[in-house]
Amino acid sequence: MNDPMNATPSLAPRPQVEIALGARSYGIHIGAGLLESPASYAGLPRAAAALIVSNTTVGPLYAQRLAAALAPHYPQLHTLALPDGEAYKNWDTLNLIFSTLLERGCDRQTVLFALGGGVVGDLSGFAAACYMRGVPFVQIPTTLLAQVDSSVGGKTGINHPLGKNMIGAFYQPQRVICDLDSLRTLPARELSAGLAEVIKYGPIADMAFFDWVETHLDALLARAPQALAHAVQRSCEIKAAVVGQDERESGLRAILNFGHTFGHAIEAGLGYGRWLHGEAVGCGMVLAARLSQLQGGVDESFVQRLIALIARAGLPTVAPLLDANDNLGRYLALMRVDKKAEAGAIKFVLLDRPGSAQLCRVPDELLARALALHGARA
Amino acid sequence: MNDPMNATPSLAPRPQVEIALGARSYGIHIGAGLLESPASYAGLPRAAAALIVSNTTVGPLYAQRLAAALAPHYPQLHTLALPDGEAYKNWDTLNLIFSTLLERGCDRQTVLFALGGGVVGDLSGFAAACYMRGVPFVQIPTTLLAQVDSSVGGKTGINHPLGKNMIGAFYQPQRVICDLDSLRTLPARELSAGLAEVIKYGPIADMAFFDWVETHLDALLARAPQALAHAVQRSCEIKAAVVGQDERESGLRAILNFGHTFGHAIEAGLGYGRWLHGEAVGCGMVLAARLSQLQGGVDESFVQRLIALIARAGLPTVAPLLDANDNLGRYLALMRVDKKAEAGAIKFVLLDRPGSAQLCRVPDELLARALALHGARA
Repeated sequence: MNDPMNATPSLAPRPQVEIALGARSYGIHIGAGLLESPASYAGLPRAAAALIVSNTTVGPLYAQRLAAALAPHYPQLHTLALPDGEAYKNWDTLNLIFSTLLERGCDRQTVLFALGGGVVGDLSGFAAACYMRGVPFVQIPTTLLAQVDSSVGGKTGINHPLGKNMIGAFYQPQRVICDLDSLRTLPARELSAGLAEVIKYGPIADMAFFDWVETHLDALLARAPQALAHAVQRSCEIKAAVVGQDERESGLRAILNFGHTFGHAIEAGLGYGRWLHGEAVGCGMVLAARLSQLQGGVDESFVQRLIALIARAGLPTVAPLLDANDNLGRYLALMRVDKKAEAGAIKFVLLDRPGSAQLCRVPDELLARALALHGARA
Repeated sequence: MNDPMNATPSLAPRPQVEIALGARSYGIHIGAGLLESPASYAGLPRAAAALIVSNTTVGPLYAQRLAAALAPHYPQLHTLALPDGEAYKNWDTLNLIFSTLLERGCDRQTVLFALGGGVVGDLSGFAAACYMRGVPFVQIPTTLLAQVDSSVGGKTGINHPLGKNMIGAFYQPQRVICDLDSLRTLPARELSAGLAEVIKYGPIADMAFFDWVETHLDALLARAPQALAHAVQRSCEIKAAVVGQDERESGLRAILNFGHTFGHAIEAGLGYGRWLHGEAVGCGMVLAARLSQLQGGVDESFVQRLIALIARAGLPTVAPLLDANDNLGRYLALMRVDKKAEAGAIKFVLLDRPGSAQLCRVPDELLARALALHGARA
């Protein structure tokens, strides 16, 4: 029998959040100092080679420290720094990963480590899903947005000139390691963008968490470690509960896209990279909350409360003008290519009450009213 | 209660082969006249739109007849003819499918129909796997090779300049429809290439089928419908039995690649498209059988029997010269990027006896002997 006093030190510590997806289950580890801790990597698949995929911003800050932690486990350790930004989430950048893997002779056991924000995670995860039809990968998200959003759910992919995230795969990582220390170097604008997704979880699923975020927003903006730890953990728990019931987004999972239908239209309409994803989602939540109010799901005071919180987080609350001649038409055209659309009908995630969301169609005239109330003037 | 005499006529007929993969199970329908038969499409997912993906050779022959059969089920029916050939199994061609889907406003319910050979199937299947992270697809293979090989197993993907099939996904179709009539228009060279995979199933799994192929090879070359029907059905059954035990090729499934390690090296070394895949596999089986004999798995008479059958089928049995100065070195280098390779060690599918195969490493000197015995001279 095992002596509990002699427990093997190579076991990874218990993850803070478990994502239960049968054979594709994995853990999310949340804490300070995890990047350099050998325990963070215990129990992962071993292989002759590993590739650290990062970008030109995050790589210089953290790649060497990650490489030092991984070196004992992977004899051949390669690194690749992608160009930084949503504008590079495309085939050409994805192919940089494939070419690196093939040029270095990486085989089907090779483990990919995604070190960076959502773009690095989406690209690396999709590359892992496709390289030799699937190799293991580990996410090490270094932005708040990636820690509270893309670390759960296995959505990977790239943009197409005709639409965002149109090409991709559902592919689960082996593990997610959220080192809260990496948020110290995050620009303030990106911290705010991450808070948009944190704010999102309350209205769709947990108003007690919404209250908590309202109370602790200043601490979050000040990057207080304990506040960040709770925000990341609770966000991941809520997302995990939803994804666990609907891994491939056939129904319930769509509620996680509250604010995203407008958000994607804003990102595409302005040109990817002009607004951060979280900024577009923040503004999109204002419009989605307004539609919810117009449909009777929430009252005016809730809309104002949400707008106030989004604004306090440093996020935009006024929808940009996408076309001076036909702004509504432009929004509609962009939203019709949303992946939730069916046969040209746009579907919105709306609140049927604070803390609960569902997928609805909305008449065009309500969209016009929402944009008139919360959109920029020509 | 249902009156059995009143059974709904919209049910698809029972498939000839069932691929049992849990929630991803599907049927293979084999017969003459299936392309135009409404029953072939009964019970498939319905949607506002469908896209028929074909190529410039097969499309003019069959796309209109398929479109007529599908029209009652899909209000918007789009067609796309890709350039024909292995040389086009790349990202640019894949992106033609994505762009067509996005330009036509196709949503996440859209069904893709792959009408053509292995290249069309691999491209369409991978496009279906990735478009909006997965849409349904149906395979209608029109070559013997595609009917006996790619119709089972869900391997999809594209080539990379540095390796064949290096980027892809395991993604199962909703149904496979093998219309034997489509083999009537198949060029003789492609019929032979398909026979390479038919011949393969005997040595690795079923010597009684090998005997049957030897006896019926002339009938197959003459495209006798009953012989073709049996060859397609038995090939699919053998492949289905293997894939059912190992969907993602973690072990057993690799035996289906008998002759493919050499074959892939030949295709890559000559430049994709110079030799057909089946031709390279035919020649690759000669080399793999020789390695098996050198390792003691089969005797000389079996090697000669296999060579004679491959030659009768109209396939090459002499390995081409890939490098006049260092032919062995070139073969080795090309085989080290094979997906079965691990940490630079090449693995071959070898026969441990006629009718049984396993994955083995082989010393370089045996490879040199096999190439010396069956390779072209400088």
